[in-house]
Order: sequence, then C-alpha cells, then structure tokens
Amino acid sequence: MNAPGTFHIEARDGQARTGRLTTAHGVVETPIFMPVGTQGTVKSLCPRDLTELGTQILLGNTYHLYLRPGDELVAKMGGLHRFMRWDGPILTDSGGFQVFSLSGLRKITSEGVEFQSHIDGSRHFFSPEKVVSIQKNLGSDIMMVLDECVPFGADKAYTEKSLALTTKWAGQCRAALPPGSGQLMFGIVQGGFFKDLRRQSAEEICSLGFEGHALGGLSVGESRAEMYDILHAAAPFLPDAKPKYLMGVGAPSDLVEGVAAGIDMFDCVLPTRNARNGTLYTRKGKVNIKRAEYREDDSPLDPDCDCYACTNFSRAYLRHLYIAKELLSYRLNTIHNISFFLTLMRDVREAIRQGRFAALKAEIQAMYPPDGVDKRPE
Amino acid sequence: MNAPGTFHIEARDGQARTGRLTTAHGVVETPIFMPVGTQGTVKSLCPRDLTELGTQILLGNTYHLYLRPGDELVAKMGGLHRFMRWDGPILTDSGGFQVFSLSGLRKITSEGVEFQSHIDGSRHFFSPEKVVSIQKNLGSDIMMVLDECVPFGADKAYTEKSLALTTKWAGQCRAALPPGSGQLMFGIVQGGFFKDLRRQSAEEICSLGFEGHALGGLSVGESRAEMYDILHAAAPFLPDAKPKYLMGVGAPSDLVEGVAAGIDMFDCVLPTRNARNGTLYTRKGKVNIKRAEYREDDSPLDPDCDCYACTNFSRAYLRHLYIAKELLSYRLNTIHNISFFLTLMRDVREAIRQGRFAALKAEIQAMYPPDGVDKRPE
Repeated sequence: MNAPGTFHIEARDGQARTGRLTTAHGVVETPIFMPVGTQGTVKSLCPRDLTELGTQILLGNTYHLYLRPGDELVAKMGGLHRFMRWDGPILTDSGGFQVFSLSGLRKITSEGVEFQSHIDGSRHFFSPEKVVSIQKNLGSDIMMVLDECVPFGADKAYTEKSLALTTKWAGQCRAALPPGSGQLMFGIVQGGFFKDLRRQSAEEICSLGFEGHALGGLSVGESRAEMYDILHAAAPFLPDAKPKYLMGVGAPSDLVEGVAAGIDMFDCVLPTRNARNGTLYTRKGKVNIKRAEYREDDSPLDPDCDCYACTNFSRAYLRHLYIAKELLSYRLNTIHNISFFLTLMRDVREAIRQGRFAALKAEIQAMYPPDGVDKRPE
Repeated sequence: MNAPGTFHIEARDGQARTGRLTTAHGVVETPIFMPVGTQGTVKSLCPRDLTELGTQILLGNTYHLYLRPGDELVAKMGGLHRFMRWDGPILTDSGGFQVFSLSGLRKITSEGVEFQSHIDGSRHFFSPEKVVSIQKNLGSDIMMVLDECVPFGADKAYTEKSLALTTKWAGQCRAALPPGSGQLMFGIVQGGFFKDLRRQSAEEICSLGFEGHALGGLSVGESRAEMYDILHAAAPFLPDAKPKYLMGVGAPSDLVEGVAAGIDMFDCVLPTRNARNGTLYTRKGKVNIKRAEYREDDSPLDPDCDCYACTNFSRAYLRHLYIAKELLSYRLNTIHNISFFLTLMRDVREAIRQGRFAALKAEIQAMYPPDGVDKRPE
C-alpha cells in the first residue's frame, strides 16, 4: 500500500477527476461522499450496515466527540475506529463549525475560541493545538484544521480579518502535526464570498504543506447561484495534485456541481437527516414517504435501488413505519438515502472514467434543480 | 410437514415439557418466548436481525394493527407476514387486553366492547367476530379469542360474570373460525384470582375445540406470590396434549416458573422495552448501561453472549450511545435482550431434555429473584 496521503488521479473529464487517496485505514476512491457519524455512529446504522452499503470513509464530529464521550475516553478505548468498530477511513472536522453553529456564548481571540457546551452549558476552549490534540486522541485518518467559518453576510473587512486568523491557526495546526505521522491534515480555505480573498486564503493555506485542502464557509445560507459562483472561482485556486474537499455540501445537485469544479470529497447530513424526516432520494426525484398516496403502494421505494430497504419492503410498509414513529423507519430510510448518495458517487466516478460526466450532471440537476437554499443543519 | 396445529410433546421433566408446534409458517420449538412486534416490527429490529437471533415466532398486536395501518390495508398488502417481510410464524392477540389497558372510554356489553382509539380518539367496536375478521386479514398463524381481562382486585361476583362473557365470546370466535382453516385459534382462560373460577373457565373454554389454550389475566398488578399461586393452580386445568400459553409474562424468573408449571409459550415486552430504557439482561444479573461505572469499561456487555452487540462493542460504547440518545443504542440493546431471552429458552429446552430443568430454574431465580411487581406495559 502507498504511504498515507498518497493521492493518484486516475481519470479526468473536464475539471472532474477520479482518484485514489491512501489513508492509514485504506484507500478511498474519489469523488466520494462521506456519511456523517456525528457521535461515533451514523445515526441508526451499525458498522455492518455501512460496510454493506459500500461506505468508504466516514466523517466524525470533533466538537461532539470531545464533549461526549470525550476524546480522552475514546483514546483509552483504542481510538474512534476501535470504539465504534469501523475499520475504514475516518475524517474528523476540527469542531470549529459546530462551535459557531451549535454552542452558546462564543468568544474568539487570536488564541482560539471559547464556547459553551450545547449539552450542559459548561465552558470550553478550542485552540488550534487543542483541536489537533483531540483529533490525535480520536485517531482519525484525516484531521481538519481549526478555522473560523465566516457567517453569511459578513463584510469584506471582517472576512479579511477572519482570513488572517484562519491562516495563523492553520500554521499552528500543521506545526502541531508535522507530515508523516500517518494521520493526514487538510487545510481549510476561507474568504467568504469575496473571490480575491478566496484566492489569498488559498495561497496562504496551500503553502503550509497539507495533504489536502478544503473549501469552507459555503452552504451557510447563500443561494445556490452564489455558492456555485464561489465554488467555481475558488476550487481552481487549490493545488490540482492534492484532494479537494467541499465541506458540509451537499444536495445531489451540489455534489455534481462540485465534481464539475474538480472537488474530490464531500460530506453532508442531508441524506441522514432527511431520512429521519421521511424524505427519500431516488433518481426519479424525492419521495416524501408520509404522503397518503403511498398508503397502499405495494411497490418498492426505488425499484432501481439494491439496498436492504428497497429489496425487501414496500412503500406502504415504509410509510406505516414512519407514521407510527417506529425506530425501524429511521434505519431503513437511512440505509436507502446513504445507498442513494454512495451509488450516485459511484456512478459519477464511472461517468468520469467514460468521459460522459457532463451528461450525468445534467441528468441529476434536471431531477434535483439547484435552486433554493439547503442550510447546513448540524 | 404436519398439519397446522399438530403439537408433539418430545420430552418431560416434572411438569415442564419440550414440544414442537406446527403452524402454517413453520414449526415452533417449545417452551418458546415470542418477541413482541406491536406495530408490524419488533421495535428497532428488521426481519434479518430477528432471523439471526434465532427468533421462531413473533407476536403482533391486533389492537394496534387494526388502528394503524388497518387490517384491511395489511390484507391488501398480502397479510402481515408479507407486509413486514417475516416468513416465520406469527401469533396475534385479540386486542382485548389493549382495549382495556390503552384505549379511552370503554363500554362492555354482551355484544363486545366499544372503545376510543389512543391515537386519535375515534370510536370503534370489537365483537368476537370482528377480532376474528381482523386476525384473518392479518393472516396470523395463531389467533387469540376476544376476552375480558379482569382488572386486578375485581371481586368474585364481577369475575364470575366476566367469565361467563369470556366463555360466550370464545364460542363465537371459534364459530367464526372453525378448525382446519390453516390459522389456529387459542382460547383464553380467565377467572381472576379465584381458583374455582379458573377451573370453571378452563372447563368451559377447553371444551370448545381450540388448538391451544392461554392463561390470561395474570401480570396485571398482583404480587409474584399471587401470580405463581394462580399459575400453578390453573395450568393443570389446561389439557396436557395442547400448547399452553401464559400471556404477557414475563421476567426471566416468571418464564422458568411458567415452564415448571407446564407452560409452553410466553410473550412480554420486557426485553424490548427494557432495552430502550438501558436495562440489559445477563446471566450474571441486570446491567443498567447508563451507570457511570461502565464509562471506561472496555469489556463486552456479556462475554458469554454471541449476539452482534456483545461480539462487537464495549460497555463503554453502549453506554455512550445510550447517554447520547443515539438510535443505534435502542437497536443494539434490543438485539442483546432478545438474544438473552431466546437463549434462555433454548437452554430451558435443553435442560428439560437432559432432566436438569430444576437446577436451571433455581439458577435463574437466584439471579432474578421473583419478587416485586412487573406490570405489563403495552
């Protein structure tokens, strides 16, 4: 096996590309979607479900795991992989986004950010070094640097100041985990909705020797047009030879838009959260399983899907479980939505290899029009 | 395969016996514990989980399935087996118990019972013929007759009057489903806590040609001593050659007490409900998984258990999932508790075959002392 961090690009189709990223827990085929396992589990699923779904890499949330059960406990239990019995690659975020979106009372200084736990109100402090230390304890294959996710609508002066802080913190994070440890570290490019600041941030961040780079600060309340504008402007600033990760995005239309801009990695709570809300994805459009029209519908949710839910149960049964608030509803719906997202990305990779990605992108965006705003929920 | 309803007793040890009951969906080895799948699913589990656990027969709740999704819908979808994709035997209760324990505003007449749905307050009427019709729609392998479950503390006059009604209804149920249809029907012996009435009820009910007989009206608020007293008095009134079912019971101590009295079949929500409350069963006693002592406990919940939860995860992880209210907690806990109950009954059958059931009963009752009151919850 190649050393962790090795990234081979295998095929190209426009800006889109397929590749293979080596981590300490195996190789990830890109472009890839990472299901979100916030608290050491992808909600309602066990590791066997994830393996059967062909999951290649999970995302874990540093903020949540730090607060509960605690990264030191996870370290004592042998790290997050062993704790949750997932042998594949894990990427952990830095916790910064959740500090800004979930926790109470935040105070940012150049040293880091003070915040209150959303669970019990207790006070905590994340410095760049602290979030690296936490992610070392978790033992993630890919860790993310601490950054400030600039709020949507921030003006240029604020964004510029924030960018400087994000660059400073990125340098501290890299210093706290030099290359070659086995754990990879990705830098995060910010710069809000200002293209010159995106360029500046990319130049600064990408000079620090990270094994990959992310675009942060998107899907924070902007329109699809604004998101795609910045996406296409900013993605080319990232070095082509390393993995590019679009954080917290997205809907099916966003995934193919990101791939078209050269993005290799995605994560989003949309498939899992929507599963629990009864919103299910198919290649013929979304299905709201609670609708009365499915009451006596004996057909599978998606006849083209080979997941456990679609190959065993009827829409009528899935609707019944949802209406009756049965726990099995959440699990079957989640299995299906994860299957949809992973299958979509498998098809994306195949389309790129065959030089027909543009057609697949058009098909997906016709079915899932890239309008409206999908806020990042967790 | 033998005709549905065939019951062969294979081994005896005192009053305890092992047997094989043939149903339209397969043979059930007795004594057996039936996990409760109230609304067309054993809460949090899918059919594959149940198969892997060695589940031989499930219980479905007529009251719940009638109200939601409706027995006519289930019939249109090909019956409960096909609807929930469970190919093994299913026993359905008559709904009577839930009418008395869950629904609002009940009015009993000699024709049946009027009640209000606990879901939407709508009014409904269960007659003996109606509950047979519902259970025909569900397609259960074993259906139960409509009875009145006498409240704990009822006096003899009330109990005697109720007994007459239960006998009348039982006759009407049998008339609505004559023997030989493929679906079996069990009568229910009532009589409260009066042994002479238990004898009278058994004589009346067991003369009606049912394929099996149940003791109803126990585990309704009485002490363990009172329950066991009636159990041992009433079980011998049931014909030895047919299956004997103790409804809504019980805790581990009750299962072995019942087996000692010659009971062949049991159901109870205790393992599934307690799983969701974090109370887990092991042969070394109950484990309350939320306790702080398990915070850093890297050992399996039960090293002697071969279920998916015990062979993969630590107590620390199970505690974390429970504390974090993760959906996976309910599933793993349920898998374990069902495994415990089914393994216990497998051990009971083996002990009977080997003539050492008394020792197993003593072991279980030492670990789970038969004191206190476990109310029937659903």
